[in-house]
Amino acid sequence: MVERVLRYGTERLNALSDGVFAIAMTLLVIDLKVPDLSGDELSRLPAELRGQVGSYLAYALSFYVIGQMWLAHHRLFRHIGAADARLLRMNLLLLMVIAVVPFPTSLLGHYGGQTWGVVPYAAAMVLLQVLFAAMWWWAHRHGLLVDAVESRREARAGIARSVAFGVVFAASIPLAFVDPDLAKYLWLLLAIVPWLIVRLVRRRTG
Amino acid sequence: MVERVLRYGTERLNALSDGVFAIAMTLLVIDLKVPDLSGDELSRLPAELRGQVGSYLAYALSFYVIGQMWLAHHRLFRHIGAADARLLRMNLLLLMVIAVVPFPTSLLGHYGGQTWGVVPYAAAMVLLQVLFAAMWWWAHRHGLLVDAVESRREARAGIARSVAFGVVFAASIPLAFVDPDLAKYLWLLLAIVPWLIVRLVRRRTG
Amino acid sequence: MVERVLRYGTERLNALSDGVFAIAMTLLVIDLKVPDLSGDELSRLPAELRGQVGSYLAYALSFYVIGQMWLAHHRLFRHIGAADARLLRMNLLLLMVIAVVPFPTSLLGHYGGQTWGVVPYAAAMVLLQVLFAAMWWWAHRHGLLVDAVESRREARAGIARSVAFGVVFAASIPLAFVDPDLAKYLWLLLAIVPWLIVRLVRRRTG
Amino acid sequence: MVERVLRYGTERLNALSDGVFAIAMTLLVIDLKVPDLSGDELSRLPAELRGQVGSYLAYALSFYVIGQMWLAHHRLFRHIGAADARLLRMNLLLLMVIAVVPFPTSLLGHYGGQTWGVVPYAAAMVLLQVLFAAMWWWAHRHGLLVDAVESRREARAGIARSVAFGVVFAASIPLAFVDPDLAKYLWLLLAIVPWLIVRLVRRRTG
Repeated sequence: MVERVLRYGTERLNALSDGVFAIAMTLLVIDLKVPDLSGDELSRLPAELRGQVGSYLAYALSFYVIGQMWLAHHRLFRHIGAADARLLRMNLLLLMVIAVVPFPTSLLGHYGGQTWGVVPYAAAMVLLQVLFAAMWWWAHRHGLLVDAVESRREARAGIARSVAFGVVFAASIPLAFVDPDLAKYLWLLLAIVPWLIVRLVRRRTG
Repeated sequence: MVERVLRYGTERLNALSDGVFAIAMTLLVIDLKVPDLSGDELSRLPAELRGQVGSYLAYALSFYVIGQMWLAHHRLFRHIGAADARLLRMNLLLLMVIAVVPFPTSLLGHYGGQTWGVVPYAAAMVLLQVLFAAMWWWAHRHGLLVDAVESRREARAGIARSVAFGVVFAASIPLAFVDPDLAKYLWLLLAIVPWLIVRLVRRRTG
Repeated sequence: MVERVLRYGTERLNALSDGVFAIAMTLLVIDLKVPDLSGDELSRLPAELRGQVGSYLAYALSFYVIGQMWLAHHRLFRHIGAADARLLRMNLLLLMVIAVVPFPTSLLGHYGGQTWGVVPYAAAMVLLQVLFAAMWWWAHRHGLLVDAVESRREARAGIARSVAFGVVFAASIPLAFVDPDLAKYLWLLLAIVPWLIVRLVRRRTG
Repeated sequence: MVERVLRYGTERLNALSDGVFAIAMTLLVIDLKVPDLSGDELSRLPAELRGQVGSYLAYALSFYVIGQMWLAHHRLFRHIGAADARLLRMNLLLLMVIAVVPFPTSLLGHYGGQTWGVVPYAAAMVLLQVLFAAMWWWAHRHGLLVDAVESRREARAGIARSVAFGVVFAASIPLAFVDPDLAKYLWLLLAIVPWLIVRLVRRRTG
């Protein structure tokens, strides 16, 4: 059976992914509009620009989040030497969510105090973490990792990190129905919990 | 004559294709809009988001269809070692249809019960399958495949698969003028028929 | 002096170019809009779609023209082994015009009977041909071509082809002020003249 | 400690960057619109096109500025053999600013006589120069440059050039609050000062 499975190089997977990441990162730039002012309204230019601050922040936040995902994707595929058809499909699913991230991020920026301003963002993050964990696990299980020792350690750390992030974001969804701000406070955990878990994993396996 | 024909590597063909695929996949993200609600309308946020469900589905469907086409393209060019000018042109024609797929897919999502909601999608699929079959056949005929034995088998399977898909989609077009739903039921055949044909081809040639 | 000149590989030049070509090719897809019809207007769907025929043709024409330019670019850089700073700049200028081609092409599609529907398209084509000729010539003069014999012959053919196309398009601009249709008839020459010239060049140098 | 630091190849960094550069360069093409004129308004076509001259100039200026940044990025990564996580992050930050450049450039094109038409552009340029200088410095400090002698000289020249540009743009910001035109006159210095500095650096280190 083993030799029947098709193996693909990762060049095109990476090329398509980098294209989708580049588009997703820059998508919210389109929302930045040059104000259309005539001669006697020119003094309103600073006020008009200040009125767009929400759009600037949404752009920066969205770029930051997708940038982090690109770093995670880069870290993952640094350790993957070949892809099978299933991994290509998981990656397509990941890209489908990545490309949509500017939308819930912008929702969060505009309606962060509302339940439904927080839930779509948290749901997208859960999905992304599930997919990253699944890809690490799949690559580990099917011998797609490049280097046995270092890559296996990285796979464990990667899965642990994704599970930790995923659990925190998942837990924040019911909380958002009680109080959207509470859900966002929970996300502050993300600054410490994952590192704890990663450290535990590294201690046990290292 | 043979040595007069220019051969191109497939790097730039793949790079251009991945760029067009990435753009086509993400095109319908632009349709997802953050609602613009003022203070006292905030309670309408969930309803506004629910009202966009059609756009979400159109995006997911379009991404899925183009993702499948990318997988088919990847499978094809895994077996192609070099391109001639004619293959470059066929690939450009394929990309022209790929980039347009979000439009008939969105039509299908919004007007799936209408004849002209179904016909453009079926027509685009016929075109894509004809082009895939033509490219497999051309590469096979002009010695552009990398590996004689495995690639020739894959070429036969690829052509058979494309012909089967193309025939089903072509047959659904006249049906759509009788009853658009009937046309869509016919597409369910695609879940079984092609595999049958591919299996037959593999048995005969394998 | 010679060894002071920086040489660049052409990978990034090609990557950036393929990205810009992909965006330019797909730009007019954005103009295709799914009609927004409510329940009792559904019978107007075919008419609405037919009303967009101009946009479909503009998309196809623009894709075709930029596809031809991509083929010319691919042909050029197949023979170029390295780039200097000047060639990078010429290529950037070329990309600036390439990205803008959908605009005059769409103008031509909509106002082909007007002087100013024809002139911007002809002017863009003149610019592109001048740039292609200049890049072939520069690469030839500064030893950036990969293979002395074959590449030099290709350079001559490439310059001759670009000059022929450029002259025909340039001549059509004053004609368009007399009669826009006359200008377009002149373009029919492009189907035969350049091949004549290329053949002459090949005979003299081959 | 040294061997714990992860090193990444620069292929994906360059691929993502070229994608973002391509999108940023072509972003303002979307502003060019084919006028929508009916039969008896056709004579207004030249006037309508002339009315868009501001958009043409904004596109050309934005393409030129981002093209220069691409050349600087290309020059930088020609000398970088590997990236660490910090350099990836700096590059993401750079791309975030690059993608946004069409917006302040278009502001400058439309409101160049206003303080707030000039300040965003100058601020973006300061940021970009700071980031370029930081990346040269980081790569130099952490042994990411490919060739000890030539690259170190280039690093010094690159930092000096960025600092010179950055200082001039930074100085123009307070000036713009006095007189926006004065700020733009200051930019003319950029045509001579940096070359002086670069020459000084080269003399001292060469």
